[in-house]
Amino acid sequence: MRMYDIILKKRRGLVLTAEEINFFIEQYSRDKIPDYQAAALLMAIFFRGLDAEETAALTLAMANSGDRADLSSIPGLKVDKHSTGGVGDKTTLVLIPMVAAAGVPVAKMSGRGLGHTGGTIDKLESISGFRVNLDPEEFISQVNNIKAAVVAQTGQLAPADKKLYALRDVTATVDSIPLIASSVMSKKIAAGADAIVLDVKTGCGAFMRETEDAFKLARTMVSIGKRVNLPTVALITDMDQPLGNAVGNALEVKEAILTLQGKGPSDLEELCLALGSQMLLAAKKVKTDKEGRQLLLELLKNGKALQKFKDIISAQGGQVEVFDNPELLSKADLIKSVKASSDGYILGIHAEMIGNAAMLSGAGRETKDAEVDLRAGIVLHKKIGDKISAGDTLAVLYTNRPEKEAEIIRIIQEAFISGSQKPFLPPLIHGIVKPGDV
Amino acid sequence: MRMYDIILKKRRGLVLTAEEINFFIEQYSRDKIPDYQAAALLMAIFFRGLDAEETAALTLAMANSGDRADLSSIPGLKVDKHSTGGVGDKTTLVLIPMVAAAGVPVAKMSGRGLGHTGGTIDKLESISGFRVNLDPEEFISQVNNIKAAVVAQTGQLAPADKKLYALRDVTATVDSIPLIASSVMSKKIAAGADAIVLDVKTGCGAFMRETEDAFKLARTMVSIGKRVNLPTVALITDMDQPLGNAVGNALEVKEAILTLQGKGPSDLEELCLALGSQMLLAAKKVKTDKEGRQLLLELLKNGKALQKFKDIISAQGGQVEVFDNPELLSKADLIKSVKASSDGYILGIHAEMIGNAAMLSGAGRETKDAEVDLRAGIVLHKKIGDKISAGDTLAVLYTNRPEKEAEIIRIIQEAFISGSQKPFLPPLIHGIVKPGDV
Repeated sequence: MRMYDIILKKRRGLVLTAEEINFFIEQYSRDKIPDYQAAALLMAIFFRGLDAEETAALTLAMANSGDRADLSSIPGLKVDKHSTGGVGDKTTLVLIPMVAAAGVPVAKMSGRGLGHTGGTIDKLESISGFRVNLDPEEFISQVNNIKAAVVAQTGQLAPADKKLYALRDVTATVDSIPLIASSVMSKKIAAGADAIVLDVKTGCGAFMRETEDAFKLARTMVSIGKRVNLPTVALITDMDQPLGNAVGNALEVKEAILTLQGKGPSDLEELCLALGSQMLLAAKKVKTDKEGRQLLLELLKNGKALQKFKDIISAQGGQVEVFDNPELLSKADLIKSVKASSDGYILGIHAEMIGNAAMLSGAGRETKDAEVDLRAGIVLHKKIGDKISAGDTLAVLYTNRPEKEAEIIRIIQEAFISGSQKPFLPPLIHGIVKPGDV
Repeated sequence: MRMYDIILKKRRGLVLTAEEINFFIEQYSRDKIPDYQAAALLMAIFFRGLDAEETAALTLAMANSGDRADLSSIPGLKVDKHSTGGVGDKTTLVLIPMVAAAGVPVAKMSGRGLGHTGGTIDKLESISGFRVNLDPEEFISQVNNIKAAVVAQTGQLAPADKKLYALRDVTATVDSIPLIASSVMSKKIAAGADAIVLDVKTGCGAFMRETEDAFKLARTMVSIGKRVNLPTVALITDMDQPLGNAVGNALEVKEAILTLQGKGPSDLEELCLALGSQMLLAAKKVKTDKEGRQLLLELLKNGKALQKFKDIISAQGGQVEVFDNPELLSKADLIKSVKASSDGYILGIHAEMIGNAAMLSGAGRETKDAEVDLRAGIVLHKKIGDKISAGDTLAVLYTNRPEKEAEIIRIIQEAFISGSQKPFLPPLIHGIVKPGDV
């Protein structure tokens, strides 16, 4: 078997066999295939696509390229959740304790943020003392003790995906649906869960700007799950404006705590209930999503979800003072309101621009190795559909980079679009894709 | 300027600027752009193409990546000729002396063969003593003295093309018309001629199997010439069966000598007259191709073209005994006739199969660094349209690899297709593309 022939075959639009795909991933992982041949194949895949079988084969080959987490010593069905990334997306922080409080074990491996999108691990590190690196025994024993643990993903999970992703990143071959889908699913498979709930974002702050593409990606991932016997469900959700109000690591932890206290933004709470009830359904804890939703609402009301979050933070060494005083999480050298200049209604809040403004404030990474300022970020005070008067606070900037103030504020102002007519509110959830749909 | 953005732009189907193309070629030549990014761009170009301006810009950038031959000390218009490569294509051997005998200076740089196609330099080396490496002063002074010289191309001409071609060769991005066209033309521009006559082959022994693709390639190259002020004309000619009878280095030299003696195969003579008259026209030696043809026929008849070939061989140290005794050029350990097994007509001779059989006999290179057996090859005794009887000799094999005999003979037999109906003869020349046509 020769890599040249595999490239040529795909370039001609033919279907690769599982053997050919395995050969590529195995040899590439071992540095036996040079980057330039892999790059040529990736670009050919960008143009020619991969069918459902090829995509599943690629996913499995990458999942098998390194360690696969063994969660078998955790009793019960383990459900993982993954978001394709957005601005202000702190659902994982809320979902982990909520679902664990319902009695479903959550053994979560999370990533860090890049560009205008954040990552769960960075967010949790804004709680001082919180340890994101547990050894496997500690991780599993914590899940068995308190039903949940969160650790940083290691390079040992799907290393072929890691190597290939780095190449895609510099060869303009990231935004191919089968390549995105196989990348996500290979890590999820390697992470060892029994079922997956996906949150596929769509809109200007998401990787998939068009809803149609988001559905395609969702269907591709659910189809992979079906082919590898990993039950997978995907919600397609809105990322045209940021989710909730807070964008930035500590600020988002604060908002997660408020949400678990029943005082969070309604869109965030709603999305957590929708995703959470799918997780309970996948874990066979409930029989319908309505039942799941009721259970989760009860756990919010009776404080058990909040207590679970406290238990997780405490178990991983984080300081729990933030639960008594969430204001500890919204501190910065410069705290500055951005004001509305006219009366009217908010028609849109460009999520990517807010994400970029937050990144400039220090909350995000422009490059993989950049440092993150965990205190920095933006809190929106208005969302789409809100009525405004000139002088109202649209958002508050938190930053320790006073030299960037003017630039950031200008971007925030540009991100807010207002008008005189009250707009229709965008749907939060565009749809759902289940195994039966693909 | 970032290579990433250039890849993305082309991937999206947008037109690259000359600045972007120059940046790519300059930085890639200096190893400042990695092969994997170049490979991704090449594959994107394969799918998206390059328009006429982009193709011309790429050609010029590659032509400028190394030395450009300075032929200004040779008085008169210098016309170069290039063939896209075929089986049994020894036209250059006939054209150089023919055109030089007409008084047009020919400063020819030629290449070596690869795969099933041959190269002029290998062929000339079958004449013992012939030197293919002249220093630039010697080269030019020989052209000024006797109107012609032939040397091996050096890596200093269009080195960016050489580097890029090696990458295309391993990334399945060779067969892209703008990439082929710019590769050919960059070397021709760097070689310093004032006009170019192209022989674009089409058929099963050619790079362009479809005549339509050959016309596209011809138009692309003529268009490049037009944009860089290098008058270029292309003939699209048949390579469905081998050209002439001989395939193999010494055997082809012998056939070239016979052709210059007026005893060559009619298709080879006809093609040399057609290409040669275009060269005389491009050099403004004649006013019409008819006039050029008459002049060339006269030079064949009066022996001046043959004498010119002798002068060139002699000037470059080659033994001229072969002119008195061309049989010296058809010797091998094993000389074996391949016979017809039934009566009828030759309907087809698969040129690529004959080329591969010749390669197996020792006449060609499977890889760039392989050794060539200059004596080996095949001489066809029948061509398309010829009547045959069982037992007639179809072809004669010359080889020093007796262990390959059975395999080679089987391939030759398979290459000959016969039937009971006399076929229509395929056209030798499918068309011509001039600057006014693009």
